[in-house]
Amino acid sequence: MIARRVLRLRAQVGVVPGLAVIQVGHNQVSDLYGRSKQLACEEVGIASFAACLPEHASEEEVLQLVDVLNADSRVHGILVQLPMPPHIQLDKVLRAVSLDKDVDGLHPINLGRLVLRGLHQPTFIPCTPLGCLELLRRSGVQIENKHAVVIGCSNVVGLPTALLLQRYNATVTVVHEHTLNPAEATRKADIVVSATGVAQLVRGHWLKKGAVVLDVGTSAVADAEADGGYRLIGDVCFEEAQIVASAITPVPGGVGPVTVAMVLSNTFQSALRFFGIATDTSDSSFTTDSHVILR
Amino acid sequence: MIARRVLRLRAQVGVVPGLAVIQVGHNQVSDLYGRSKQLACEEVGIASFAACLPEHASEEEVLQLVDVLNADSRVHGILVQLPMPPHIQLDKVLRAVSLDKDVDGLHPINLGRLVLRGLHQPTFIPCTPLGCLELLRRSGVQIENKHAVVIGCSNVVGLPTALLLQRYNATVTVVHEHTLNPAEATRKADIVVSATGVAQLVRGHWLKKGAVVLDVGTSAVADAEADGGYRLIGDVCFEEAQIVASAITPVPGGVGPVTVAMVLSNTFQSALRFFGIATDTSDSSFTTDSHVILR
Repeated sequence: MIARRVLRLRAQVGVVPGLAVIQVGHNQVSDLYGRSKQLACEEVGIASFAACLPEHASEEEVLQLVDVLNADSRVHGILVQLPMPPHIQLDKVLRAVSLDKDVDGLHPINLGRLVLRGLHQPTFIPCTPLGCLELLRRSGVQIENKHAVVIGCSNVVGLPTALLLQRYNATVTVVHEHTLNPAEATRKADIVVSATGVAQLVRGHWLKKGAVVLDVGTSAVADAEADGGYRLIGDVCFEEAQIVASAITPVPGGVGPVTVAMVLSNTFQSALRFFGIATDTSDSSFTTDSHVILR
Repeated sequence: MIARRVLRLRAQVGVVPGLAVIQVGHNQVSDLYGRSKQLACEEVGIASFAACLPEHASEEEVLQLVDVLNADSRVHGILVQLPMPPHIQLDKVLRAVSLDKDVDGLHPINLGRLVLRGLHQPTFIPCTPLGCLELLRRSGVQIENKHAVVIGCSNVVGLPTALLLQRYNATVTVVHEHTLNPAEATRKADIVVSATGVAQLVRGHWLKKGAVVLDVGTSAVADAEADGGYRLIGDVCFEEAQIVASAITPVPGGVGPVTVAMVLSNTFQSALRFFGIATDTSDSSFTTDSHVILR
């Protein structure tokens, strides 16, 4: 468990791992993600630094902030919370993050390394794709030789998830808004990862009997009766899908918590590297509240 | 035509574009590619520099050579001929090439930018994928909304081709050696790009009626009657495929010449950028001996 390992690291070198989250402006889902990462850090004893700039902050201000965090020895991981306001060139910001602290794996060099097989490994793999991989492995789902369909081709989830599953020898199809018959394409899949943010897009008839379904999409929909006036729903119509699927993750409580756990795990690994301590892969377990519902 | 544009550039700024090809050791296919690139440069008036090191050259020697070429103002494009001997870390060599001279688009940053959509463009796109795209466009083949299958997941062709077709809104499946039923997966495709180097892998029954087939694979097979004692054959069983496909490229003479043309085009574009001359997209045509056979 990460909490115990953080304690042990503190005893060894007298410091704690630190994670900085850069956020420019606000939106409901980002705020929620930011808060949940902060809480998760607190729980396991990782220091968290919320680096928030106002919506109208200039690109230069964001880049300066990245530089400060790159140089800060208390910070071992830097997350750039998306979306960024449109006046900021995201490529520049992602490239500015030190490779050693790129715990979300979105630096173009890390994504390029995710493409290049058999060569250098990325310093870190993006947390949501890594979380999906972890869920599949923990649930004993074979990836090699399987057909996987990733729905959505976002930079943060869809595309790196496709690359990652490909690295584990799945045959991967990326389905997106220009796919003529997404239901038919998805019905071929043994493993479905949906990450579109379109609520309830994936219906029961999109799925092959026995498919494993990971629902990454999270949409906030107004609900007067819910806490805060809204509730979170996924890309997948859970009621229909659970009848067809052999395993499925719910929203909330599925991929989300594992993603957060991966952020913590990557930050911890980064701190180990920073202090020149060999990573202990025999003890890479972590706890999360995630549920994969296996039938 | 590139030759005329090279002449015009010479008249404008008194210099010619230059391409350096780094090769470590020898093999039949690399030697052939190297020679054909050199000849193509000569034909259009681009200076070519063959930078050959022996098989046992050290990684440091290769990196030093890259540094020299990065600094050489006569060189506007640097190609690293693959494969490299196994004792050389290819990732290091690719990363050492200046982004401004990375005309083969294999620098991890450029590949990462190929993944990241809607952000910064790569400085260059890998030549073979770019050649495939160009062939499809010139033949009037619609890419958007189509299902494309890329067979083979090499770093140089398969993976970047999949990413590129995805950028043009095709639904892309990458088929590889771990795909359980590659024939069935390929039969779904409107566009097939095969780049495995396995001679005659793709048979007629792998193809959907009317599919467009680009054969990137090139294998040298011994043939006592052929010039030099070998002949080149493709991934696709041409005789069978031409009956089913609506368009198909032969080997040799298909994707190969267009790839070479893309190397020249990228080198020329690089020289224009180097001299601060705006690229003239209205005159981006080039001549090649490539044949797409349309039925």
